[in-house]
Amino acid sequence: MSTVMSTPESGTGHVDFRADPSGYRHWRLAVDGRIATLTMDVDEQGGLVPGYELKLNSYDLGVDIELYDAVQRLRFEHPEVRTVVVTSGKEKIFCAGANIRMLAASPHEWKVNFCKFTNETRNGIEDATANSGQTYLAALNGTASGGGYELALACEHIMLVDDRSSAVSLPELPLLGVLPGTGGLTRVTDKRHVRRDVADYFATRAEGVGGKKAVAWRLVDEVVPRTSWEERVAERAAELAARSSRPEDAQGIRLTPLEKVRTATEITYRHVSARLDRTARTAEITVRGPETDPPAGADGIHRQGADFWTLAVTRELDDLILDLRTNETELGTWVFRTSGDAGRVLAYDRLLLDNADDWLANEIVLYLKRTLKRLDVTSRSLIALIEPGSCFAGSLLELALAADRSFHLAGVFEEIDPDAEPAAITVGPMNLGPLPMGNDLPRLATRFHGDPGALAAVRDLAGKALEAEDAERLGLVTFAPDDIDWEEEVRIGIEERAGFSPDALTGLEANYRFAGPETLETKIFGRLTAWQNWIFTRPNASGPDGALRRYGTGRRADFDRKRV
Amino acid sequence: MSTVMSTPESGTGHVDFRADPSGYRHWRLAVDGRIATLTMDVDEQGGLVPGYELKLNSYDLGVDIELYDAVQRLRFEHPEVRTVVVTSGKEKIFCAGANIRMLAASPHEWKVNFCKFTNETRNGIEDATANSGQTYLAALNGTASGGGYELALACEHIMLVDDRSSAVSLPELPLLGVLPGTGGLTRVTDKRHVRRDVADYFATRAEGVGGKKAVAWRLVDEVVPRTSWEERVAERAAELAARSSRPEDAQGIRLTPLEKVRTATEITYRHVSARLDRTARTAEITVRGPETDPPAGADGIHRQGADFWTLAVTRELDDLILDLRTNETELGTWVFRTSGDAGRVLAYDRLLLDNADDWLANEIVLYLKRTLKRLDVTSRSLIALIEPGSCFAGSLLELALAADRSFHLAGVFEEIDPDAEPAAITVGPMNLGPLPMGNDLPRLATRFHGDPGALAAVRDLAGKALEAEDAERLGLVTFAPDDIDWEEEVRIGIEERAGFSPDALTGLEANYRFAGPETLETKIFGRLTAWQNWIFTRPNASGPDGALRRYGTGRRADFDRKRV
Repeated sequence: MSTVMSTPESGTGHVDFRADPSGYRHWRLAVDGRIATLTMDVDEQGGLVPGYELKLNSYDLGVDIELYDAVQRLRFEHPEVRTVVVTSGKEKIFCAGANIRMLAASPHEWKVNFCKFTNETRNGIEDATANSGQTYLAALNGTASGGGYELALACEHIMLVDDRSSAVSLPELPLLGVLPGTGGLTRVTDKRHVRRDVADYFATRAEGVGGKKAVAWRLVDEVVPRTSWEERVAERAAELAARSSRPEDAQGIRLTPLEKVRTATEITYRHVSARLDRTARTAEITVRGPETDPPAGADGIHRQGADFWTLAVTRELDDLILDLRTNETELGTWVFRTSGDAGRVLAYDRLLLDNADDWLANEIVLYLKRTLKRLDVTSRSLIALIEPGSCFAGSLLELALAADRSFHLAGVFEEIDPDAEPAAITVGPMNLGPLPMGNDLPRLATRFHGDPGALAAVRDLAGKALEAEDAERLGLVTFAPDDIDWEEEVRIGIEERAGFSPDALTGLEANYRFAGPETLETKIFGRLTAWQNWIFTRPNASGPDGALRRYGTGRRADFDRKRV
Repeated sequence: MSTVMSTPESGTGHVDFRADPSGYRHWRLAVDGRIATLTMDVDEQGGLVPGYELKLNSYDLGVDIELYDAVQRLRFEHPEVRTVVVTSGKEKIFCAGANIRMLAASPHEWKVNFCKFTNETRNGIEDATANSGQTYLAALNGTASGGGYELALACEHIMLVDDRSSAVSLPELPLLGVLPGTGGLTRVTDKRHVRRDVADYFATRAEGVGGKKAVAWRLVDEVVPRTSWEERVAERAAELAARSSRPEDAQGIRLTPLEKVRTATEITYRHVSARLDRTARTAEITVRGPETDPPAGADGIHRQGADFWTLAVTRELDDLILDLRTNETELGTWVFRTSGDAGRVLAYDRLLLDNADDWLANEIVLYLKRTLKRLDVTSRSLIALIEPGSCFAGSLLELALAADRSFHLAGVFEEIDPDAEPAAITVGPMNLGPLPMGNDLPRLATRFHGDPGALAAVRDLAGKALEAEDAERLGLVTFAPDDIDWEEEVRIGIEERAGFSPDALTGLEANYRFAGPETLETKIFGRLTAWQNWIFTRPNASGPDGALRRYGTGRRADFDRKRV
């Protein structure tokens, strides 16, 4: 169950992203052979924060935390599932979208972070469909409006009940003066190929569209009378299941509860820990490599399950990212270190890639991919420190490649351990394909976008431990100071960052991190989200007379009519 | 000279975008055979609006209006020019970028509109280099900071004087808490392929980078000592000129002064007029087709020069778009009509395309392309009304394809002219390639993105006059009401639009208009601009204690440290 966890140390409430089906308040997950059904049945009184009721299957962050958990568990715990039917437990309403009173009462950073997480969950649903053979089917047994329809848009196939009242709609613009911010605008045109003028009309029509018109406009794939609803949904679910390549007899692994200790200054997991420095406004994150060699073969991965290092460290990193983003908004810089044996990291990588046709190995790599993508869209400055004893190799090198800057110590710290091995980084196969960013390019390819020679030079040295001088020359790290300069250079880099405008940094990073092509996913996080963020700050939406604040008061918003 | 033109009718000042080299206050344009030199020498006292001095070659909208005029005239009046050297008339400073006091004092919509226009001018510079054989060379004879460096980034080749003090820089983030908003971030990574971490460091270093480091980091193409500066610039200009395909002996045409009458309620040119309705918050724009058949051959185009219909109508449309965007921010909906002979529009199109190897015909089509691109990034709702007597064919059909919605009358207006020809639209070769949007796709291809069958069906009917029923079936228009429903449907469509949040409409349109791929250009207008708009609205930049407002006061900005 996701709750606001109160930590006595800090005296403030923290949102906890760990959830478990036994504690769901808003969803029911039922698995029947190849078909799972995920039923949204939001507890009106179950809001994460006091002050609003979650009527009409509207949602807040807490509802979405459960959805995220369910999507994850389906992938790991239920490999036999090939179709996931998403439907509603309420009568006549599928989902009314994000709760408006929650949005109206939330500070800007909460709204933006909430939208980001919901976007990521919906992208994860598409990832399951595209890469795991677990296809999502939206069974809209009532009206899906706003974020409710956007959830449906993330599914591969959309069925709508045809009963003269059920409709799909994007009423954000006419009713609230904001955009459908969870990918709706992008998916309507770029995924479902709804013509832009039709899409425009649709997004201004608060009551939405149902019946045959919704099909003709490509907003849904089919409409079905209520009399044959259950039968047709089951048929369609079975059809989608038949197309899947999921193994018939696979046994899931259990995503055991994530062990985590959180104090006012530390967040500690088994392989990952973070030191929160509120004076420096940094989180210093250390990721530890595997303590043992990998097990033998795919069987070994299955046997270890949630304890398998790559999966365990990914779960911890995922939780940490979500925790810090939501609960520690003033910690503007995340500093990444690693510690451990680079050879072992590479051995785990190799085991996973050698068994790419094993469903679990595949899921683990996909999960790592999604978790690293979270970093790319995280509005924090990311700095990697590459020091002796670190293991920035293969999958863990991605942390340095995701960073806005990296520092690689040339040589060793003479006073600490003059005999240490100098810090090195190693490019491995994980850096050359399996972990693309949202723009569909690996981080290395994005880094060297437009410079194929530099990329080839790095590829040629895959597998070799590269010390600072080489890493800098190859363009793999930003700076390579020696022992004498290290402390001051790193300190200044971090301190300076903390002094800049947090907003300007967010904008800078959101642009620089995505050289090269844009995809549906990067358009959602770049173009769409940026416009929504802008709109959220404008008095026309969020001011005392704005549409968000006036919704439901019976008074119309008072707009500044100037077009910007 | 660009001035704030005061119209007695409205009692308010209007920015006039018409300029002429004889009236330039800020630039000098010298043409010497194949090489032109455009020298920036900003008149400190020549600001467009009172309240700031344009020190250190900093610029405001007025300075950029002259630059835009110069770039246009070079293309049409000086076809013999193959290289344009952009340099400074000041000592030790190339250009300090947009004037900060101007930015700090400007309302949000002014800042955003100013950035949009400067972005378009820089894209136009790149268009001249890519498509006109007129290559821009930035000769930075002093420091280029912020928008000054962004101007250089729009040039094909950047030379920087190597004198231990001259540098290039993007100091917006550290000094002002905003982004380099004129394409800088996108061009650094996506055009010059500067590595993202280097680019990050560069954009936080207020003093910038000069000398060999600027070359090593790809920020400039070469550095040259002052002693050999003039010689090397001339050499490089000659080299670039030698690569051009511009005709040796071409004679330019004169861009004669644009005739325009502006009252409080009307803007009238020869072929274009606009009725400004401040109650309905609309501009009703009518574009008239050619009054005569086109002249014979390329010679005829040259002989008619600025009077050639396509060029004349494009200049008028261009000026109108800029005028309405800047001066009439509360007119949120632009309604487009055309009148005239569709066959003639297609004949002019054909003449231009049949002579695509003629420099002037090529320039006219490129100019039309750029002007239509302005529409795509205009923050106004665009509606096209297709009525009897209209000529939405070929190049003018692009107005309807650029619109957010179009209404096509089925049949005729019985009470007005029961014997009229029903309104028809015609797809022509201009709609199938020569006029791409910023995403590099024609508007038709963007419209049918992901639906190649629909695009092919339309292509097959090119040249055929399509009445409302066919146009609607093919997806070329949004609605096709008949005489009985027309008035009410159109009225409701327009009135409703005027009632929505102007900000949400801007965001909606900015997303829907760009289905499909993104390019450097659309990334600038989508991702980068949207983030900058957001940052501009934030107290950290524009609040009383924000960085923009505190710049130069000796007091540091007081930031809300929360990351959003």
